[in-house]
Amino acid sequence: MLRSTNKRMAHSEPMRWHGDRIVILDQRRLPQERVERTLCDVGDVVDAIVTMAVRGAPLIGIVAAYGLVLAARHGRASVLEAAHMLRSARPTAVNLMRAVDRMRAIVVTASDHAIVQALEQEAHAIAQEEARANYAIGIWALQLIRPEDGVLTHCNAGALATAPYGTATAPMYIAHEQGRAVKVYATETRPVLQGARLTAYELAQAGIDVTLITDSMVGTLMAQGKVHAVIVGADRIAANGDTANKIGTYTIAVVAKAHSIPLYVAAPTSSIDARTPTGAHIPIEERDASEVTTISGTSVAPAGVHVYNPAFDITPHHLIAAIITEQGVIRAPYEDKLARL
Amino acid sequence: MLRSTNKRMAHSEPMRWHGDRIVILDQRRLPQERVERTLCDVGDVVDAIVTMAVRGAPLIGIVAAYGLVLAARHGRASVLEAAHMLRSARPTAVNLMRAVDRMRAIVVTASDHAIVQALEQEAHAIAQEEARANYAIGIWALQLIRPEDGVLTHCNAGALATAPYGTATAPMYIAHEQGRAVKVYATETRPVLQGARLTAYELAQAGIDVTLITDSMVGTLMAQGKVHAVIVGADRIAANGDTANKIGTYTIAVVAKAHSIPLYVAAPTSSIDARTPTGAHIPIEERDASEVTTISGTSVAPAGVHVYNPAFDITPHHLIAAIITEQGVIRAPYEDKLARL
Repeated sequence: MLRSTNKRMAHSEPMRWHGDRIVILDQRRLPQERVERTLCDVGDVVDAIVTMAVRGAPLIGIVAAYGLVLAARHGRASVLEAAHMLRSARPTAVNLMRAVDRMRAIVVTASDHAIVQALEQEAHAIAQEEARANYAIGIWALQLIRPEDGVLTHCNAGALATAPYGTATAPMYIAHEQGRAVKVYATETRPVLQGARLTAYELAQAGIDVTLITDSMVGTLMAQGKVHAVIVGADRIAANGDTANKIGTYTIAVVAKAHSIPLYVAAPTSSIDARTPTGAHIPIEERDASEVTTISGTSVAPAGVHVYNPAFDITPHHLIAAIITEQGVIRAPYEDKLARL
Repeated sequence: MLRSTNKRMAHSEPMRWHGDRIVILDQRRLPQERVERTLCDVGDVVDAIVTMAVRGAPLIGIVAAYGLVLAARHGRASVLEAAHMLRSARPTAVNLMRAVDRMRAIVVTASDHAIVQALEQEAHAIAQEEARANYAIGIWALQLIRPEDGVLTHCNAGALATAPYGTATAPMYIAHEQGRAVKVYATETRPVLQGARLTAYELAQAGIDVTLITDSMVGTLMAQGKVHAVIVGADRIAANGDTANKIGTYTIAVVAKAHSIPLYVAAPTSSIDARTPTGAHIPIEERDASEVTTISGTSVAPAGVHVYNPAFDITPHHLIAAIITEQGVIRAPYEDKLARL
């Protein structure tokens, strides 16, 4: 059961660890309401991930890691069972699997009396690594953007997906801190509208110049010369550089290529999955038709209509100008360079 | 003032002429409610067009023509004043201008006592020509679609935009009548969702196999080999074949080209504007930010966010495999062939 709390988190801080519970910002309610939810056990955590109260590949991994700390209070077997539940909560983002695997490795080696503390330390480590990766990604990415460039992003790979700077948004935040002008175009990102509800919200809160468009306007904006680079996050990067990201990324990548506009994938190395050879091997989650047919509870389509609702798509490596991780900027051919990370 | 009526029109019949009033199906309320509105004077007609209670390039022209019949009851000067108001109601679709110009030509030549009757006959002629064009477009277009093809359409160029078959949807209806299987993918078409609310609705009502997707899914669907042709309508076709249509058409055209999938523009010759040399000369209407930031009255974006909301875009002629009019299928180079129509 998710419960509301009255305490308020800092803006765009998507989660807090309290030793015996996780407090999250319920991202389904933004930007209308800033509602916090307290997750007290792994059931709460799985529910929050499945319903997308928490979302964003790195954040899901971090929350899952802390979820396993909660499970550890009930013993080693509970952690292993919880790990199994968490791994299947969302199938596409690899950060979740990676975080769970790191925590499982701790469970195997830690002594009984130290297991909770050891898991908590590992969860802290995962959270801190992702936070540090944000900044490094931003610094690397900033080298690829000229002053006054128009930068388009899709979905939310922002501070709400991994505090404090996000991945795709990290160069935007850092440019803004440095007093450099940056003009951001945020696609609304149907069906769940993370671009409208989250990216436009967090960037506007930070005082960054952001313009909201529908997903269908990307081509027109590019034809008008308003977009100089596209930066998106990643839910999983295959060994050959093929990238799973929010549905719509592939369409944007094709259109960017046709306009000779570079598309950059900004993601921590935790999003790289060397065990997945190509994008064709990445499982794509299909979600409920109601995400498309209803918006904020209002029906926008005829009852019973057939719907196709894949949550992610695959952008093949040849449409990606560079992959920006905390370790630097990687350009094609990706295979060997990704393997080295 | 728009007023509701209790009489029901046939399904997908978007308007009816009653001699002293126009009854329209309020397309803003579909598919949840079938609300009819009675338009009693030109003010009503302008309001219905501006607010998109009636929409669809051919339908706007027809309703405007009957609107001028209503104005004629107040004399010749009223018709000319009404013609001026109607021309500026929506700037992009040329059918509106063309219908108004045809009616103005009647006003100039008709004698005082016969003006209402002459205008009514011309309005009937415009409506009948568009209806006949539907069927011819469908027959021509059907030659371009193989049995079992997946056909993608955008926005609504259906029976609700021009009865009885629509333009882009005409081959789908005719194929269905002939017992041929056709699989239609309808983009929801943000921001106003004409694809979800109107196209998916009218095709499903007719028993046609239609699947609703978000605009962002077009690329993925094409990469999966599910789409064999794209058919869209047009709000204005320039002399060189460049086509203004609902925002998002250009993005789809670029992605279709990248997948070697033909994109066809299906439109009556009344949508061709020989006086507009290229797409760059077509005025593009920008509409209110609230169309993007709110859906069915619910806010889906942060308050005060910057929004860019062009209602149409231009698809350059080199991305159009053919233009299908009631007179046949035209392929590039378009300029001379369009001039002959």
